[in-house]
Amino acid sequence: MHVLIFGGGGFLGRRLAKTLIESGGLLQGKITHLSLMDTAFPEEMPQDSRLEAIKSDFSDEKEIREVLQLQPDVIFHLAAIVSGEAEKNFELGMKVNFHASLQLLELCRMLDYSPRIVFASSCAVFGGDVSKVIRDDTSPTPLSSYGTQKAMVELLMNDYSRKGFVDARCLRLPTIAIRPGKPNAATSSFVSSIIREPLYGKNASCPVPSETKVWIQSPNRVIQNFIHAANIDEQILGNDRIFNLPGLTVSIQEMLRSLEQISSPEVTNLISFEPDDFIQSIVLTWPPHFDTQRAINIGFVKDASSEEIIKSFINEEGISS
Amino acid sequence: MHVLIFGGGGFLGRRLAKTLIESGGLLQGKITHLSLMDTAFPEEMPQDSRLEAIKSDFSDEKEIREVLQLQPDVIFHLAAIVSGEAEKNFELGMKVNFHASLQLLELCRMLDYSPRIVFASSCAVFGGDVSKVIRDDTSPTPLSSYGTQKAMVELLMNDYSRKGFVDARCLRLPTIAIRPGKPNAATSSFVSSIIREPLYGKNASCPVPSETKVWIQSPNRVIQNFIHAANIDEQILGNDRIFNLPGLTVSIQEMLRSLEQISSPEVTNLISFEPDDFIQSIVLTWPPHFDTQRAINIGFVKDASSEEIIKSFINEEGISS
Repeated sequence: MHVLIFGGGGFLGRRLAKTLIESGGLLQGKITHLSLMDTAFPEEMPQDSRLEAIKSDFSDEKEIREVLQLQPDVIFHLAAIVSGEAEKNFELGMKVNFHASLQLLELCRMLDYSPRIVFASSCAVFGGDVSKVIRDDTSPTPLSSYGTQKAMVELLMNDYSRKGFVDARCLRLPTIAIRPGKPNAATSSFVSSIIREPLYGKNASCPVPSETKVWIQSPNRVIQNFIHAANIDEQILGNDRIFNLPGLTVSIQEMLRSLEQISSPEVTNLISFEPDDFIQSIVLTWPPHFDTQRAINIGFVKDASSEEIIKSFINEEGISS
Repeated sequence: MHVLIFGGGGFLGRRLAKTLIESGGLLQGKITHLSLMDTAFPEEMPQDSRLEAIKSDFSDEKEIREVLQLQPDVIFHLAAIVSGEAEKNFELGMKVNFHASLQLLELCRMLDYSPRIVFASSCAVFGGDVSKVIRDDTSPTPLSSYGTQKAMVELLMNDYSRKGFVDARCLRLPTIAIRPGKPNAATSSFVSSIIREPLYGKNASCPVPSETKVWIQSPNRVIQNFIHAANIDEQILGNDRIFNLPGLTVSIQEMLRSLEQISSPEVTNLISFEPDDFIQSIVLTWPPHFDTQRAINIGFVKDASSEEIIKSFINEEGISS
């Protein structure tokens, strides 16, 4: 089978590709061809003869049309302009996050089969009263253009699936923690930085108060959930293809306490609190409390604790304590 | 002030225009110019020197750009491909209901002021378990392309308002009953036909079982609510500009019983039940139970009973009993 990953050059895309290659396939069959598309790829890409890296913009119609001619069985759509950038550059966010996603769906509609699509949506579709528990039927109320664009694409994914044009599954990702590498323009980037940077002996600043609660999921669980989403039998899905992934509710304080217990006070002393109005204007509207019964029932997985998340990051990165 | 009505040639658009002309204006000021845009206008249009009827397609960028040069203070956006047509002609529905609405917002974004927009959305954004009570924070789960397109535009209206590009208010209209004139391609058209046609001595067929409950609002209340929406102070609106209008839950049976009491058994004998799979596949997914606390609190109005709705239709149409 042929698997295609849009956003395959990003951190999650590469890790997903690596996992797929190592496991050999999905429930539907063995992977014979794995195409990754992205605007850029880092040098250290997974090496495998089945893997092809296509350097292209997700909004380039000609390129998308061409790669769809390869008849991918499963498409992972992880391509996006991140939240902070989409808020600052409204037109770019609309172009990539919304219009290019709609274009993908339109090109899929023209195919003579209905490809399965796993779409990386985001819990940023929610915003507002952070004391409220988000249920499976709670309405999206995005307070960012990024969240708005994701919520619109979810609606399209549902309708195109209902019409039989595609077979989509939309996962609302919690904030991913802990991301390796450098900070990015996601407004949630600091949730990773405040753990990662001190572990590397570097300073980090936290732009929100320490009592701020966040809704997080580790990269490992997200990859497991992407693959699970691709494996779910269409028959049991019904018309609603949107899932709030089961994250973990933790305060910044709790994360830093775990970090200190695992490492040392010298590590956590590298963190300073420097309020940032722009980041707070988005992140402090993200509700951290969810009841994700539907996702749990259908087999999506969650992390056990922030301690576990930090420990597995340390292991994966080979950080010596 | 200048008021612009997209879909101004339709039944609701014309009635809104008539009401605005008669009342003279909105809270913001007197109406000096009232532009109606639509693809077609009936001959019997309201006559007034302030009124201008512009024959044009809502998706025609050049025409929309031109009419926006007149700097409308308030825009009523009632232009749409109705539910049944949008379901059968997916591309046309996307073009008019979604893309043309986005185009309007984009053209408004380029203006040097933020026009107020009252957008006619629909309770067809909901679909599925009809026993469920729809609350103000219940997520849209459209089971029609029409509902999907409306839900997407609502999200855009909220985001463009949050960014200060426009000042939008989205009203989720219940099924309008009783519409005068001829049946149209809305899948809910029968809710009006089964009352209207027999009152004119004509046969009518009901495509759903008599125990089917519907969520309705009379044209008079809808017009009142459009005008109220235009009058609400932006300061009290906040970021969520979407309202489930307070409709009335009635079964087809109850409506026909009211009709029989007001008229006679000879009238209701003109109605036959002829199941229609296509109409049922959409209408039977529309939940008829709502808790519209937020709309009530902010001053939107509802009908008292189906009896009252039928009686005022008879009065307005001058039907002799």
